[in-house]
Amino acid sequence: MTPQRTPDPQTGAAVKAADRAHVFHSWSAQGLIDPLAVAGAEGSYFWDYEGNRFLDFTSGLVFTNIGYQHPKVVAAIQEQAATMTTFAPAFAVEARSEAARLIAERTPGDLDKIFFTNGGAEAVENAIRMARLHTGRHKVMSAYRSYHGGTNTAINLTGDPRRWASDSGSAGVTRFWAPFLYRSPFHATTEAEECARALKHLEETITFEGPATIAAIILESVPGTAGIMTPPAGYLPGVRALCDRYGIVLVLDEVMAGFGRTGKWFACEHFDVVPDLLTFAKGVNSGYVPLGGVAISRKIAETFEHRPFPGGLTYSGHPLACAAAVATINVMEEEGVVEQAAHLGATVLEPGLRELAERHPSVGEVRGLGAFWALELVRSKETREPLVPYNASGADNAPMAAFGAACKKRGLWPFINMNRTHVVPPCNITEAEAKEGLAVLDEALTVADEYTV
Amino acid sequence: MTPQRTPDPQTGAAVKAADRAHVFHSWSAQGLIDPLAVAGAEGSYFWDYEGNRFLDFTSGLVFTNIGYQHPKVVAAIQEQAATMTTFAPAFAVEARSEAARLIAERTPGDLDKIFFTNGGAEAVENAIRMARLHTGRHKVMSAYRSYHGGTNTAINLTGDPRRWASDSGSAGVTRFWAPFLYRSPFHATTEAEECARALKHLEETITFEGPATIAAIILESVPGTAGIMTPPAGYLPGVRALCDRYGIVLVLDEVMAGFGRTGKWFACEHFDVVPDLLTFAKGVNSGYVPLGGVAISRKIAETFEHRPFPGGLTYSGHPLACAAAVATINVMEEEGVVEQAAHLGATVLEPGLRELAERHPSVGEVRGLGAFWALELVRSKETREPLVPYNASGADNAPMAAFGAACKKRGLWPFINMNRTHVVPPCNITEAEAKEGLAVLDEALTVADEYTV
Ligand SMILES: Cc1ncc(COP(=O)(O)O)c(C=O)c1O
Ligand SMILES: Cc1ncc(COP(=O)(O)O)c(C=O)c1O
Repeated sequence: MTPQRTPDPQTGAAVKAADRAHVFHSWSAQGLIDPLAVAGAEGSYFWDYEGNRFLDFTSGLVFTNIGYQHPKVVAAIQEQAATMTTFAPAFAVEARSEAARLIAERTPGDLDKIFFTNGGAEAVENAIRMARLHTGRHKVMSAYRSYHGGTNTAINLTGDPRRWASDSGSAGVTRFWAPFLYRSPFHATTEAEECARALKHLEETITFEGPATIAAIILESVPGTAGIMTPPAGYLPGVRALCDRYGIVLVLDEVMAGFGRTGKWFACEHFDVVPDLLTFAKGVNSGYVPLGGVAISRKIAETFEHRPFPGGLTYSGHPLACAAAVATINVMEEEGVVEQAAHLGATVLEPGLRELAERHPSVGEVRGLGAFWALELVRSKETREPLVPYNASGADNAPMAAFGAACKKRGLWPFINMNRTHVVPPCNITEAEAKEGLAVLDEALTVADEYTV
Repeated sequence: MTPQRTPDPQTGAAVKAADRAHVFHSWSAQGLIDPLAVAGAEGSYFWDYEGNRFLDFTSGLVFTNIGYQHPKVVAAIQEQAATMTTFAPAFAVEARSEAARLIAERTPGDLDKIFFTNGGAEAVENAIRMARLHTGRHKVMSAYRSYHGGTNTAINLTGDPRRWASDSGSAGVTRFWAPFLYRSPFHATTEAEECARALKHLEETITFEGPATIAAIILESVPGTAGIMTPPAGYLPGVRALCDRYGIVLVLDEVMAGFGRTGKWFACEHFDVVPDLLTFAKGVNSGYVPLGGVAISRKIAETFEHRPFPGGLTYSGHPLACAAAVATINVMEEEGVVEQAAHLGATVLEPGLRELAERHPSVGEVRGLGAFWALELVRSKETREPLVPYNASGADNAPMAAFGAACKKRGLWPFINMNRTHVVPPCNITEAEAKEGLAVLDEALTVADEYTV
């Protein structure tokens, strides 16, 4: 059983007071938030200062792929801290070399050179820089249903409404629609039709944009925050072929989908597709120390063999972050965490969630793979009208807020985005824990059901 | 004496080989670099696998303000790793609350809310986002001699040639010239004249750009990588007054100059100027774990009190990074590190470097404060022609390469940028160590002297 510290509401109140006085939070109206003070975390659970414990179906922001406080990774961080906490990026250091080697060994194809960053947004920024300089072209194509990070290029590539306030219309971005049969932009009725039509739409958009103006297409192999829409089998191979035909760099963003989340090391392996650049972060070290990066194909690496790569950052390949990656990857190998994610999806999450969908009128669709699942909540299974409008807030969002509150009240911390709940626990969550979470979802969905028509 | 591991060239060769096979380095032509494999570091020294030890006059990339492996900060990282290595940003956690409180306590004026990032570039990105949304204006003014980071907005704001390859001309940036008497853009002959002319130039540029189109002016309080040009006493107060007059947000970038480097907690304190936004990173935790951020004034925080701030990142306020900041700030208080930097500058570095300048024909100017000094190397003291041309590489850069090699051969690792060497050791370097470094500089400068006319 997970340890639970003695409740200590006084410390909790102090932590919360200092937070409210001094911490400015991401993506929030500072006066309208009420952050829970968290006292500790282990495995798939965390707890507050009041004695409440929560099963974490979010993996933080989908990064603790091996759960909280894995003792081997904690020990590796402590050991690296004792020997070489930090060092500047222009040198060769053991943890950095070893992390790069272990990552390159796992990335598919010839993605053999690793440029390290602190997180996902910087990985995307640098991948796009590489693609632009490699091709000599400026324009980048990205999908409407996507999230690529918060820095200027990354947020402009993003499809999510979080882009709007920062959309300068000037980052050289053209957007297109990726396949999503449940809400098909192409009026398709089968996966095969959706795939064919999505590829036709993409090729037509490329043609009208001018193929020679396009540096890169960036796609999440399996879009995450936007709704975990596993593409039809032929889609990514089709995109790869279009990129090859037109000399466009294919960037697959695996910041969320990579490192085991989908039941393979990288999600693109499900489709036998090798991108020219692959961005990663989060799962690479389970978020224990900030780390991200770009895995680079031979042909793009060659562009920067004798010509300087004009990008960088102070903490590229930070030793402490790299040591955490080395330990995490080794743990994932030793404990078969990638296989665990695949097994969990096939034997517990998929059947369990499909069973919930059958019984609950509010569940319009269940989709996903591995430890990466989305439930689309709707007002009606027939019309598929979302349970709350796109980008709803306040009263408009009441149904999802009620659903979320029902989960939390029962000790489950849910991932909620618009009209969806994502089931994205640690990849190594036990079967019993996963079932405990599904049982809570079952009860909370009865609350969502009340809003159906 | 600093510990020195037994030489182990075999491990060094393996670390180097894996680096060359798999690590893609910042700002480099990958085929033309030969990174030194570093085995360990402590205090102001690091050592390689061959038995060579180097005195670090660079503080990494000017971030180890308390030196390498400070035992109290190492212990704090280990303890935080044992209890709560990571947690998502939407919660209140003790290390994050306490780091924000300690930083807000030290930042001047009403800079009381802290938005955390992973490093300097993301801090600048988010500061500019805040300024644009606060003012409803888009344009940002920045100085030619500057560095603000590698992501799209940050690199476009940068003056340094590292910008050129990524300059999209579309980030809403207008550049101006900041004061630099030694190479005065304004043909001034005294600091007072330089100051008055620089302010006139800035006001005229604002007037012709259209004050109502300008969201922010961003300046390094003391420009770092561009050459450590401490501004004349009246300059920043003058810029502050212009910003107030025209409703422009003043962003001071203290990523390099902050947290003790100049002999005060923040460099702007030397000028009694409080910016609207202050960006930091590096020294906040001596670079032990990636961390940066923006300190936010009350009036800008209020803009996001009831309206969401549309920016964020997965690792905002990462607990491990914040715990390292808490420990670093406490160590800096307990050991008087800020005062040490001031004392070092006044009693050792300034007199020592001025003495070198007198004797060496290659030293055109010595400038700086605290543990933050630059030597301008020239072909002639009279013409002030730089020892190497702006942005030189290859054969053109031979004089600086020879100077750098002479330092390294004698056990000193120098910071070199164009025709300058910066003396930026840890703020708590001992007097004896600093003098050891100055003695090496003395010898190495005789190599630079050979290139004078
Ligand atoms: C697919 C994807 N790309 C990029 C990012 C940005 O990563 P970060 O928040 O570490 O900058 C995210 C974050 O959720 C992501 O899911
Ligand atoms: C003044 C200044 N701003 C911003 C940055 C960018 O910081 P980072 O490399 O952590 O992104 C630097 C880095 O040297 C800097 O010196």
